Amino acid sequence: MEEALSSAMDEIARLVGVTHVLRGEAAARWSGDWAGHRRWQPLAVARPGDTGEVAALVRLANRHRLPLVPVSGNTNLVKGTVAEGALMVSLDRLSEIREIRPAARVAAVGAGVVIEALNTALAAHDLMFPLSFGARGSAMVGGVLSTNAGGANVLRYGNTRDLCLGIEAVTPTGEVMHLMGALHKNNSGYDLRHLLIGAEGTLGIITAAMLRLVPRPRAQATAMVALPSLDAALGLLNRLQDETGGAVEAFEYMPASFLRALLRQFPEMRPPFDTMHAVNVLVELGARAPRDVTPDATGQVPLAAHLEGVLAALWDEGHVLDAVVAKSEAQRAEMWARREASAHVLRARSPVVEGDIAVATDRVATLVARTGAACRALDPGIEITGVAHLGDGNLHFVGWPSRPDAALCAELSRAVETEAVALGGSFSAEHGIGLSKLGAMTAHKDPVALETMRAIKAALDPNGILNPGKLLPKG
Amino acid sequence: MEEALSSAMDEIARLVGVTHVLRGEAAARWSGDWAGHRRWQPLAVARPGDTGEVAALVRLANRHRLPLVPVSGNTNLVKGTVAEGALMVSLDRLSEIREIRPAARVAAVGAGVVIEALNTALAAHDLMFPLSFGARGSAMVGGVLSTNAGGANVLRYGNTRDLCLGIEAVTPTGEVMHLMGALHKNNSGYDLRHLLIGAEGTLGIITAAMLRLVPRPRAQATAMVALPSLDAALGLLNRLQDETGGAVEAFEYMPASFLRALLRQFPEMRPPFDTMHAVNVLVELGARAPRDVTPDATGQVPLAAHLEGVLAALWDEGHVLDAVVAKSEAQRAEMWARREASAHVLRARSPVVEGDIAVATDRVATLVARTGAACRALDPGIEITGVAHLGDGNLHFVGWPSRPDAALCAELSRAVETEAVALGGSFSAEHGIGLSKLGAMTAHKDPVALETMRAIKAALDPNGILNPGKLLPKG
Repeated sequence: MEEALSSAMDEIARLVGVTHVLRGEAAARWSGDWAGHRRWQPLAVARPGDTGEVAALVRLANRHRLPLVPVSGNTNLVKGTVAEGALMVSLDRLSEIREIRPAARVAAVGAGVVIEALNTALAAHDLMFPLSFGARGSAMVGGVLSTNAGGANVLRYGNTRDLCLGIEAVTPTGEVMHLMGALHKNNSGYDLRHLLIGAEGTLGIITAAMLRLVPRPRAQATAMVALPSLDAALGLLNRLQDETGGAVEAFEYMPASFLRALLRQFPEMRPPFDTMHAVNVLVELGARAPRDVTPDATGQVPLAAHLEGVLAALWDEGHVLDAVVAKSEAQRAEMWARREASAHVLRARSPVVEGDIAVATDRVATLVARTGAACRALDPGIEITGVAHLGDGNLHFVGWPSRPDAALCAELSRAVETEAVALGGSFSAEHGIGLSKLGAMTAHKDPVALETMRAIKAALDPNGILNPGKLLPKG
Repeated sequence: MEEALSSAMDEIARLVGVTHVLRGEAAARWSGDWAGHRRWQPLAVARPGDTGEVAALVRLANRHRLPLVPVSGNTNLVKGTVAEGALMVSLDRLSEIREIRPAARVAAVGAGVVIEALNTALAAHDLMFPLSFGARGSAMVGGVLSTNAGGANVLRYGNTRDLCLGIEAVTPTGEVMHLMGALHKNNSGYDLRHLLIGAEGTLGIITAAMLRLVPRPRAQATAMVALPSLDAALGLLNRLQDETGGAVEAFEYMPASFLRALLRQFPEMRPPFDTMHAVNVLVELGARAPRDVTPDATGQVPLAAHLEGVLAALWDEGHVLDAVVAKSEAQRAEMWARREASAHVLRARSPVVEGDIAVATDRVATLVARTGAACRALDPGIEITGVAHLGDGNLHFVGWPSRPDAALCAELSRAVETEAVALGGSFSAEHGIGLSKLGAMTAHKDPVALETMRAIKAALDPNGILNPGKLLPKG
């Protein structure tokens, strides 16, 4: 056994080069998760330099029956890269932007390209890859595809899968699949791209992708708005979408409970309004057409004027309590800083119960009410907060229970997911399953769908090599 | 054998009711394809009344090892519903619009709902399901999902898969899978919805869907434009997208050869211009925001003014040869009538070589040149025409060979597909594979992808019951 492992390690070192095989302290960056939930000891971390080396590693893992965990930016939030005793394959060296084609608005990129680095390269062409979330400075293409990352701009641009036209991937048995077309129409068999996107590395390792690009907005109009209710907020969203022809890029809900926690943790930050309101929304419009940014006869910029006009009309009608439109990039940055601090604020206390849940946009208010009631019934002393991508129905529920009781936390977590599912919603909106949500998969996923997934996994990965134990609960 | 079959037929009749089992003349509507390429004799056509009956039929087919061909509107163009000796399962009775939720902009509909009927129902809410192609008056939800139908509006709204948030489906072994959420974010395991969409009924029977709706445009601005080249046309497209913030809904290419064939077949139609130009485009913008349709101080409607302004500027620069903007709904209808007659014009002559091919938008001009050259090299007397969804890169190539020679036609067809693939394109853009493109699948599809598809098919449909022989060439 020892000898077999040692021989496998020698093979790996010959394959990717000895400097690209890391163990012990050198592998520390890959031996724990971003949120600090878990540490683990991988067998080793191999950093292949190209797709061929990735494929060879997977074939080797099949021969030696080594479990293999793919990783890129390692910003996963659901223990999707836990790799105790497994060989980790880091895609970070596949960091080449292979091609940018501005006329076709596509880019071919390796799995190790950091989202923010891609956008820096695209800025020269006035284009962008419109995926926006807190970890964009370290998350990589391979990871965002494998987890179908979402974020704040989904209501305008879709999830990662909607932004990907083609992939190159290594199968669980170590063959390379070339599906890198830059095509808007291609009905030639099962859509394996969509099968691998969001599969969390259990059905293949995505090594490169052909990504859709969009023009950078010519300008943004950004505001903080206080509203009397979540339903009033949905009314504002629909009104803005109608008035602007769908220019809303972000629509982020921050309850008073979140703002209070934020100000406690970051006393240097300012509250959005002098009065604390229960329902606050950060809204951002993106200007696409020149006339949206060309001042009219009165000197007003149409996009900002639109936003102010709609807010003023709703204020007159009592549907808006207060609002402030950013007058400078610094004011806009301050608005976003509050929202982007949420990853730190919401995880600063322990114990914590988190729910990454979603419902249709017309049911968010009900979801907030019901999750709150269900949790208070279990723990009257619980503090409830969270933030939401209100424009796409995704609520990041956070509860701080009154006492550190693991059984209570588990029960609260189940209650939150159950309420989402009861409203036709998802118990896992954008973070995925990993190890963290396996119980919820068993409890809530359609059983026929689960059996179908297991059949696909068994057919494509007969040796159970790729990211074993993740995503799919045991049957 | 005879006895077993007769017992199966009795079971089917008991299951769906004897009036819903059709054979012989009564099944004529399902015994041939729309384009008239093929007639066949199904064992019978069963018309189940609900999802439970569909599932029971599939279980019965597994017990009796009956091949089963799902069908809805039967407008397929690639022999996807050929059912010689097979049991056809028609979804046409699943025609209920279960729910329309205007605030969430979704509708839950049965597989038998006709696309045009859905849009009629949605008009009352100022919403639409934005899939637009010639057969929309008979094509049904089940079919457009199973084939991932495209059409003229893909550049703005995407293909059918982009317009579907959830499905209900019967698996190849006769179980019902409930994935009908109206969610914009749902990362809970493999995306089986996308696996079944476009699978042409070989991996499951879609019985219902949760569809995305969009606001109906407040108005359209439509024009016919003659240009000096296809590259100039792409320039017009990008300029219009930039100027209007992405309001182009259709961008349809019609070469002179097509217009001449159209006028020969329909002498009552008028040519778009007094002079016949080589490159003609039908362009349509859709207005979303009120200010796009509110006349300005000079009485001009902004959207139409935009279109005219861009065309005038490009005319001044020599990038547009001629243009006419529709001044009435009747003029707009006349423009579209030319384009929509293409299904009749392009199939009116025999022999005919058709290619449903696609490349990235920046390569269409090259594709047109190379397919033409390749075909003329094989048959100097060939007449070449076609139309294209230029905005998404999809060319409907048509060649009329100089002589009725089946071997030549096959060679021409292969040459057309080969040129598309050589440019990184697809040999099957929007019509799918069916039986017609099996040879091209073998020749051009990534072999690792093909093997992966076969493994999935074998795992999910162990008895090979669902639409056997379609989509996947034998290994």
